[in-house]
Amino acid sequence: MMNTNLPSISEMIEALALVSEDKDFLSRQYLTPQHKKVNDLVADWMKLAGMKAWQDPIGNIVGRYEGHESGLPALMLGSHLDTVVNAGKFDGMLGVATAIHCVASLQRRGKRLPVALEVIGFADEEGTRFKSTYLGSKAVAGTFDLATLDRLDTAGISMRKALSSFGLDTENIPKAARNNNEISAYVELHIEQGPVLEEKNLAAGIVTEIAGATRFTVEIIGKAGHAGTVPLDFRQDALVTASECIIKIEELAKNSPNTVVTVGEISIKPGASNVIPGQTLFTIDLRSADNNVRRKVENELHKALKEICTKRKTKLMTTKTHSAESTSCSNNVIKQLEDAFIDCGHPTYFLPSGAGHDAAAMSDITNTGMIFIRCREGISHNPAESVEIEDIESGFQIMLKFVENFKPN
Amino acid sequence: MMNTNLPSISEMIEALALVSEDKDFLSRQYLTPQHKKVNDLVADWMKLAGMKAWQDPIGNIVGRYEGHESGLPALMLGSHLDTVVNAGKFDGMLGVATAIHCVASLQRRGKRLPVALEVIGFADEEGTRFKSTYLGSKAVAGTFDLATLDRLDTAGISMRKALSSFGLDTENIPKAARNNNEISAYVELHIEQGPVLEEKNLAAGIVTEIAGATRFTVEIIGKAGHAGTVPLDFRQDALVTASECIIKIEELAKNSPNTVVTVGEISIKPGASNVIPGQTLFTIDLRSADNNVRRKVENELHKALKEICTKRKTKLMTTKTHSAESTSCSNNVIKQLEDAFIDCGHPTYFLPSGAGHDAAAMSDITNTGMIFIRCREGISHNPAESVEIEDIESGFQIMLKFVENFKPN
Repeated sequence: MMNTNLPSISEMIEALALVSEDKDFLSRQYLTPQHKKVNDLVADWMKLAGMKAWQDPIGNIVGRYEGHESGLPALMLGSHLDTVVNAGKFDGMLGVATAIHCVASLQRRGKRLPVALEVIGFADEEGTRFKSTYLGSKAVAGTFDLATLDRLDTAGISMRKALSSFGLDTENIPKAARNNNEISAYVELHIEQGPVLEEKNLAAGIVTEIAGATRFTVEIIGKAGHAGTVPLDFRQDALVTASECIIKIEELAKNSPNTVVTVGEISIKPGASNVIPGQTLFTIDLRSADNNVRRKVENELHKALKEICTKRKTKLMTTKTHSAESTSCSNNVIKQLEDAFIDCGHPTYFLPSGAGHDAAAMSDITNTGMIFIRCREGISHNPAESVEIEDIESGFQIMLKFVENFKPN
Repeated sequence: MMNTNLPSISEMIEALALVSEDKDFLSRQYLTPQHKKVNDLVADWMKLAGMKAWQDPIGNIVGRYEGHESGLPALMLGSHLDTVVNAGKFDGMLGVATAIHCVASLQRRGKRLPVALEVIGFADEEGTRFKSTYLGSKAVAGTFDLATLDRLDTAGISMRKALSSFGLDTENIPKAARNNNEISAYVELHIEQGPVLEEKNLAAGIVTEIAGATRFTVEIIGKAGHAGTVPLDFRQDALVTASECIIKIEELAKNSPNTVVTVGEISIKPGASNVIPGQTLFTIDLRSADNNVRRKVENELHKALKEICTKRKTKLMTTKTHSAESTSCSNNVIKQLEDAFIDCGHPTYFLPSGAGHDAAAMSDITNTGMIFIRCREGISHNPAESVEIEDIESGFQIMLKFVENFKPN
């Protein structure tokens, strides 16, 4: 059977981008009618590509293409189908569409492999609705925390209630978990969401690790005062203190390999042009491919901030709000991806991922690997997200080569 | 006639503090019923102290105590009677109450001077209602800008309309202006609103200049991006850039005499913990007792900000929103204040005023001088504003000695 009706990867991307909660921009959150609609769409494509397709108990859509014989362990490919609010159309979707096309190519040629192939469209990676990420992949990895079911969205609807309205039974969630001997590896193709590949003039790269992250909120208490009457040496300016901290934080991260740090939110009180700031609140987002490096920077950072605040006679309070370990991609998968790059005539380039991906959650049950695809100016989580058609084709060719030659550990 | 019914300075302060638009805190804006009420109260006290009292066409309350003969040029004492929102009770009022008591003391002793004495309670120094300062003293100095009449308060009422509701005729405003040969000098007693006298363990000090000020808004445009995926060397972080600017701005001011600088407002966009700031907006409030120093720092500051932004590949836009020259107090008045300090057994200490005062506006028509009184922790524009009763008494004694010995140029 020829899958002549299967849309191209680009056509899939366009079709998925039309399924949005908002008519003015792309927004598709977990357990919405739009989620159901893309699952149906993707299931149809999976079937056209020769797969058996089903929706699992957490709302992921899964397709399976048997190998040389029925019931073999599977090489799982995929990514996520949910989006942030006002999203780009490649983030997640590109990985799912490319995976379907790899299977379609085998099916067209009547080819079966020594492994089964599964394609998965994860239901919620971004965590936009319930402020908890990897909901789909954690369920598959068996690490889904049932306490998450009590989380509320902004409309006050619990995840439990939303699942039920969607037609899913919370009792069945544990059944979404796969046994680790069912899955040989999970390999995800995703846009880079950063500027490195573009800078290096490369269509694609091989991910080595997914960075761990620590987030803090920092509060600095100084002393408000009249902007004209308090000499500089008398001041306990909470914003000048914070500024010195921000410069120091950047310096510490710059001196550490594969580490980034971001202060993305800041606010001051009282906040008038003629009043010395008495309080500053800011966030720190620290990420590193290496957990030891991240912990080292974290310690240096605490020490440095304390010194600066002591020197400036201000009071420091830090609160850790998030911590996640980095996860390494499988050396075996990386090696096989390297071979696929070479076979397809692409230079091999290795880079860590600073962003989180479903592969991080999947690493709890199987070997993982990731292919990054160049995106324009590194822009993501934004309608301006853009990928060249040639790079989509390169990614597909590399993934197909990898799949055809895949050998489990 | 004995003025036995005249409240003490402290009692006046307490009485004025009760006249507020808000029952929970002190707030008394220009041309309100509360303004009228304090003018009546102060006029009564002026009369008890032997003065003729009248309200001028801008709403200032003025009292006059003739000298050896009627119609002599006047030494004018006073300060303002309006307040900021949620104000302290000494800011402005202390100067008016002390001035009335100087006249009362002369009257009690039947003493007349070779000058007339005038006491003025300015109607609006803070500019709280119409966002334009020194309205009362500018009218007296003849520098009131009639365009101000079209300014609206937050309720949309124009100053013109508010004057009329208050019972004042805008046509008469020019008549508030005094001729420079009518006023020999204007001398104001005011709380320091800063921490210097407390630090120096002094009850009072002599003001040398009222600082000039320049205010800017600064916009830095960088590039937003994902906090995890953009390596530090690729970033154009608008907040890290701003932080470096803020540290540099402080350094430039610290290296300049009698100069302070404050960044009192800052905001960033997009403002999410996992997004690199793409835009930062902040204010700069630069003040110096010396206009040349202020202009020098202003130039250095522009150059430094430009260099930092160029280095960090961000775009800089600065807008000057305010500029006021510093005004020097009269050497003759300063010398006579110095004598009064010495006669009263107080060490003489000279300091510039970083805050603006009616004396700055009055310097356009006459010689000016100011006595600063220590206030607790330098706190002002706040209900916690506090002055020791002993310091009030010291200020009164010094002012009285100055007045009794006053010689015009």
